[in-house]
Order: sequence, then structure tokens, then C-alpha cells
Amino acid sequence: MSLKIRHLLGLEGVDAEDISLILDTAVSFKEVLSRSIPKVPTLRGVTIVNLFYEPSTRTRISFELAEKRLSADTVNFSASGSSASKGESLKDTVWNIEAMKIDMIVIRHQAAGSPHYLAETCESTIINAGDGAHEHPTQGLLDMYTIREKYGKIEGLKVVIVGDIKHSRVARSNIWGLLTMGAEVSVCGPPTLIPVEMEKFGVKVYDDLDEALMGKDVVNILRIQKERQQSGLLPSLREYSRFYGITKDRLKNLNDNFTIMHPGPMNRGVEISSEVAEAPYSVILPQVTNGVAVRMAILYLLSARRGRIDEE
Amino acid sequence: MSLKIRHLLGLEGVDAEDISLILDTAVSFKEVLSRSIPKVPTLRGVTIVNLFYEPSTRTRISFELAEKRLSADTVNFSASGSSASKGESLKDTVWNIEAMKIDMIVIRHQAAGSPHYLAETCESTIINAGDGAHEHPTQGLLDMYTIREKYGKIEGLKVVIVGDIKHSRVARSNIWGLLTMGAEVSVCGPPTLIPVEMEKFGVKVYDDLDEALMGKDVVNILRIQKERQQSGLLPSLREYSRFYGITKDRLKNLNDNFTIMHPGPMNRGVEISSEVAEAPYSVILPQVTNGVAVRMAILYLLSARRGRIDEE
Amino acid sequence: MSLKIRHLLGLEGVDAEDISLILDTAVSFKEVLSRSIPKVPTLRGVTIVNLFYEPSTRTRISFELAEKRLSADTVNFSASGSSASKGESLKDTVWNIEAMKIDMIVIRHQAAGSPHYLAETCESTIINAGDGAHEHPTQGLLDMYTIREKYGKIEGLKVVIVGDIKHSRVARSNIWGLLTMGAEVSVCGPPTLIPVEMEKFGVKVYDDLDEALMGKDVVNILRIQKERQQSGLLPSLREYSRFYGITKDRLKNLNDNFTIMHPGPMNRGVEISSEVAEAPYSVILPQVTNGVAVRMAILYLLSARRGRIDEE
Repeated sequence: MSLKIRHLLGLEGVDAEDISLILDTAVSFKEVLSRSIPKVPTLRGVTIVNLFYEPSTRTRISFELAEKRLSADTVNFSASGSSASKGESLKDTVWNIEAMKIDMIVIRHQAAGSPHYLAETCESTIINAGDGAHEHPTQGLLDMYTIREKYGKIEGLKVVIVGDIKHSRVARSNIWGLLTMGAEVSVCGPPTLIPVEMEKFGVKVYDDLDEALMGKDVVNILRIQKERQQSGLLPSLREYSRFYGITKDRLKNLNDNFTIMHPGPMNRGVEISSEVAEAPYSVILPQVTNGVAVRMAILYLLSARRGRIDEE
Repeated sequence: MSLKIRHLLGLEGVDAEDISLILDTAVSFKEVLSRSIPKVPTLRGVTIVNLFYEPSTRTRISFELAEKRLSADTVNFSASGSSASKGESLKDTVWNIEAMKIDMIVIRHQAAGSPHYLAETCESTIINAGDGAHEHPTQGLLDMYTIREKYGKIEGLKVVIVGDIKHSRVARSNIWGLLTMGAEVSVCGPPTLIPVEMEKFGVKVYDDLDEALMGKDVVNILRIQKERQQSGLLPSLREYSRFYGITKDRLKNLNDNFTIMHPGPMNRGVEISSEVAEAPYSVILPQVTNGVAVRMAILYLLSARRGRIDEE
Repeated sequence: MSLKIRHLLGLEGVDAEDISLILDTAVSFKEVLSRSIPKVPTLRGVTIVNLFYEPSTRTRISFELAEKRLSADTVNFSASGSSASKGESLKDTVWNIEAMKIDMIVIRHQAAGSPHYLAETCESTIINAGDGAHEHPTQGLLDMYTIREKYGKIEGLKVVIVGDIKHSRVARSNIWGLLTMGAEVSVCGPPTLIPVEMEKFGVKVYDDLDEALMGKDVVNILRIQKERQQSGLLPSLREYSRFYGITKDRLKNLNDNFTIMHPGPMNRGVEISSEVAEAPYSVILPQVTNGVAVRMAILYLLSARRGRIDEE
């Protein structure tokens, strides 16, 4: 089996077969991670550049670990201390990196669409590690992996995403992926932070949190991104927290065996209480663990697609 | 033989048996470093994250080299360009990193006690690479290694630490380690920079440098940390240098076969003259070399303690 | 065969035999780069520190890839987040790094002559990756490699370097190397940006671009370094572009089979038009590819010179 996609630019338009193949492959890599030497020689000789134009801890480290556990050669690049600071265009930077005979580029960039632009102008395989407020497909995949690991399926589950939907690439990737896999998706947040087109996509929109949580299986809580918020869209943090913060009291309307997710980094006491974050129904840390396995699967499958390694 | 400690948080409370085991083990690793291929497969499959919240050259590179020479997989993280800049707590950052299945965390942090806090809340093995003005245990160990390498022993030697004792994690780790190993420890510096509790620990306090150096074997000269100095505690640098700067003339009171140490980075012409720094009795560069061997020993022994590798 | 030079500090004074040996060796490494696993064990056990005091993308990544493809162990150091920010001298920083038993130091530094200073005070092999406005010898070598790859020779070719010659380490390294290899070298730029000593070295000086391009084979276009320009030396960018920007129209005076080069990063629309940059006669991306092969050759030959690896 082989992926139909050649790059991972977003989950919009990726079909259920490709998503399932990634999630199935991640299962074997998760097993690798539990070995005493959690390393396989699968990507030996494959060179990957991690190009991060925005600050990141978990995503960068997660990709870097996934690459090392697959025995790839990796080079890191962050925007500060680079020729990006000399005003070079993204295209020229990437053409140059690519001329050094690399295979894959993992890119995080503040401009929505930049990975798509690179995929059109480059030979390398491009993996989007977050482009502006557009998509963060590996996050979407690891969220789906985590849901499937717990429930054995995604189809038919009721998932609600809570927070600033408008500026969230995590929300967008989750919505596309979950809809494709047959989940029932809702969003909930202040009306100013919900894009108008949501309902067109078949996503239910709530502005009342208690109503939104009614009968749901999974709550995916977005980080309030103070640094990305334009003034005026959000009331005070205290007010946000009162209306949309997930505390233990709010969970009563959820289905039995419900699940709490958060992509991190958390603002404890704002969008999620510490009690909820650390409760048994929270899969916030399993999400992080699964992230490495899912990224290994993506790197492996796209590398196979590229013909750099033999497919099994 | 195996360490009693599970983490290296500081030298306070570490007993002589553990310290001796580390120093003995470092002897074999120093031999490895002198080979034409200075590398052993000891930590293959062990993943170490270097988490540096403060600027560092020598300590970070020294740890990174120690890890690579042991064939560990390493991931670097520095505070800038990370989600620490998004306001995430240290605990959440580390929980997340840890969820990616790593084994050890080497942490430098401006807050005293942060490694201890992590050791209580995390599964990973924690190594303190400097926490505020509290401890810098690997520096203390490499200093003791260097002393023992020259004199064949630590017990009974007279060691004086000169400078800003109050704000120095190097001083604190040296004091705990040296006292445990039976050295006679003194400190010397401006009275405003000597903590009042020193004498309680059995440490002699001098404010006159010539008197302090009388009959001593080893002088460990601290860096004047301009960036950490609160105003008012220190007179001018010129005045500091006149009273506490170690120049060739000041050395006449020392014992024969005396030794000059400095943890670096040096302010030449302030706390130490260039002539003294580069003289045959200075072991400032051997300290750096020994640092890699000592850190290899610590990584190896704590990893064995963790059950990740077979103990010999 | 073995190099006469022990360090690569600049191309001034390096003889034709050494340059030819580097270029010949790079041919085999370029073949390695085209393999499906582009990696050789040649420098296993050799430790290299990349010391970058100035921002860099392509040079740093190119060196790092060259090192990894040779299986060396590498440690990266950039000025920010280092003890350089605590005011330590370059000499002490390097002595310390060196005391950790490393073999080679690749250094980029804003001060002209700093690699030469280190070569005198250190045991390690020093490779200059750019020192102020002085030299950038690996760039000079990769430019010559690229010329030789296309024409089969360097001798007798007519090369003109266009731009801010005065502040360009790329220009200086190209001039020394090309003259040694028997090319005919000219420079062209605003008179304020041409050093007076050029003609003494046997380099023709033009201030009119059309005249400069007449009968030339190779045009090497320098980046206008806005960040290094002192005020007053350069008219407006628009005026610079009108007089010295290379557009398709300016190329009519060149010889048949001419070549356009640029060391990057490009200011498209200023010193070079996009049309020229992407035309078949442009070897700007091959320059980047060749850079990795040339740097592998240098690392290999200097390591052999050092006696760390067997020479073939």
C-alpha cells in the first residue's frame, strides 16, 4: 500500500484511505517506541531539514525525535540566525537548501499556504508543521490516532472543538480529518472567533458551552493564543475562562467514557483547569507520545512514496 | 557497583561512595577520549534532551559531546524559539518532552530548585546543569576530578574558593563535594558576597586574600558575574581586582605544588591575570577536558541506575 | 597526495597544486552525493565544532551536511545563547572548546583575521567560513569547482566580479583563487566600492558594466549587502540596480557559452533579475550543490593532513 498524496500539506482533501494508512502505520511505530532501543534503520541515508520560522518546542522536538528514531540525517534551521534575516525569500531559501540534495522539508511558517507554494516549486517532499492559521495536519493526525486508540474507531464519534476556531490551524486540520473519517464535528467559542463558513462544511456551531458539550464523546480544547489574538475579538481572559474554560463542573453533560484533549501548550486556569488536564479522562500526554509515532509513519510513508526506500 | 542517587540534582547530600564511583568511572572515560576514535556504543538507544534556559557554551557543548561520545541520541532545546516564550510552565514543558519517551533531561534553569522540582514530578532522570545561584554539580565533580588527578587524593587538601560566593552555584557544589570528600574548605571575598551560613558548614571565611591563600593547596577562582550582580554588593571592578584579583604576586603564600582553577568563562585582568591563567600550575584547560569525561561517567552511571543499560 | 596547507584560512597564498587537489577530491565526493545513500564513513570519530558568530543559512547547513555525509560528529554553536554573550574572548572560547578534544573548528566571525589568529593559538584544524570582509575560501573553491565543471578548466577564462568588491569576502577569495589558477580576473562596481589595490594584483577594474562584460565568460554577481554597507558609499538601490544590476539586456556583450554566478542570498531585482537568475546559463543552484562536495573534500583532506585518518 502506498499513499496517494506526495506531500503532507494539510488534511483538506486527503481521503480516508490515506488517513487510515497513516494511522495503521503509526501503530507499528508506536510499538518501536516501546522497545528498549527505540530505533529502526528505515530512513538511513534520507536527509531531512526542519525549517522552523516560528517558535516551537513540542512540534520541533517531536519531528526531530521521529527522524532520529528512523535513523534519518537531520539538519535544523530556525528563522533567527539565518539568511531569512537578510531578507531572502522563502523560495530562494528552500531552493538553496534543496540544491544541497536533501529529501524532505518539514516547515513551520507564519504564512498560510507556504508549504503548498513550496510543494509546487520544489522537488523535495514537503511536510507542513503548521502554516499560519491554516493547517497543522500532523496535529490533526495525532489527535485522530489518539481518539482511535481509545475508542477503536473514529466514525460516528461526536467531537467538539472549543476555543478560538478562527485562528486555529489545529481546529482546521481536525475538522477536515474528522469529517473525512466520519465523525460528527462541532465547534464552540465566542461568535467573533468562529468563522462564518463552518456550517457549510457540516460542522455544528455552538456559542453556549454547556449546550455544546451535551452528548459529546470528545472535547478538544484549543489554546487561547494570546500572541495571535487581534485586539477586540476576545473579551478579557477572565471572561473567556468563565464562559469557555473547561472545568470539572462543565463535564456533566458529556457522554460516558468521554475524552479531554488539548494540543498544548496549555494555559492552565484559562481554557482548561489543572484538575481536568490531569484527570484520567485527559489524553493530553498520550497525544504527545502518539505524535512521535504518527510523525514517524508520515516520514516513512512519504519517503516510500518518493521512492527513496522500499515499501513493504 | 551502582549509584545510590537516581538523579544528579546537586552535591549536597551525595555521599563519598557515590562521588568516588563517579570519579573512578570518569577515569575510564578519560581513556576513551584519548583514543583515535573517542566513541563507545554504551548509550545507544538512550535519548537525552538538553534543556537550556540560560546561555551556555562550555557546559552545553561539554554535555553534548559526552552524549555523542556515548552514542546517545540527543535533542537540544534552548529557551529562545520555544514554547517557553508562549508562557508554558516548566512542568508542562517537561511533561510534554517526557511524553515523547525520552530517558534523561539535562537542565540549566535560572530558578534555584527547578531540577529538584522536576525530579519529583517526572519519570525521567534529571541532571542539573546549573540552577540559579544554587548548584552546578557536574562542575563540582569535574573540579574534584581535576584535583584528584593531580594530587592522587582530595582528603586533607586545603582548598580556597575566591570571589562572589553568594551568587555562585559553582562555589556551592564545590563546597558540598569537597567537604564530603574530606578536604579543608575556605572561602574568600568581599563580606557582602559571602553568605552568613558558611561557617556553620565548617567552611573558613576570609576577607583578606593574602591571609586566605596562606598554606593552601588549591585556589578555585570564581568568575565575577557582572550579569548576576545586584547593584551595591560589589565595588568597582577595578577595586575588586585590586583586592581579590589573583595575580602572580599574590601566590607567594601558597603551599608548594599549588594549583589554580577557574570554572570559566574568565574575565582576564579582573578576577585572574592572564599570566596566572596560562601558567603551568593552572589546570583551567584540564578542567574542561575532564568535564567531558566526568559527564560521560554521570550519564553512564545514572542510565545504568535507571536500568536502561547493563551495569558492568 | 596531501595538502601543503594545514588550515583553510583563505585562498591568498594557497598554491595551484593544493587548489587542484581540493577540486579533484570534490569530484569523487560529488559522486557520493548522487548515491541513494549519500554517506561515507570517512570521518567517523572526528569531531567538528561549527562556530558561527554571524547569521548564516546556506554556509552553516552546507558544512553541517558535508560533516554528516562524512559521518563526523558535529556540535553547533551560535553566538546568541553562548558565553560570547558573557564577554568571553574568542581565544578563551576556542581554547575551551578545544580542551574538549575536538579536531576541527569551522568558524564564521565578523572580525577579519580571526581564523588566522586561532590557527596560531590552537591545536585544532581551523576552517574559515567567512571572516568579516576578508575571505570566504570555501565559497571561492566552490565557485572555481563550478566553473571547472562547466568549462573543463579555469586557466584562460575571463571572469568578471560585479558589485561591492570592497566589502566582499566572496570577491576576495575568488580573486586569489582564480588568479592562482590562471584565470583573467576583472571587477566592476561603483568606484567607491572598489579597493584601490585591485590593479596591483593584476585585476582589471571597470566602472562601466557594459564595458566590463565585453568578451567575458563568467559573471560572478555579488549580493548588495545592505546590512554591511556604510552610509554614503552606495547611491540608492534603484540607482545601483540601474547601473550595475544584471538583467537579460546587459548580457549581449558576453562570450558565447557564458555563465552567471551568484553566491546568494540574492536580492532579486536589485543586483540580479529573476529572469537571469533562473536562466539555463545561471549556475546558482549548482554552486550550492557543489558547495557540499567541496566542503567534504576540504574536511577530508585537512583531516588526513592532521593524521586523523589514513590518506588514500
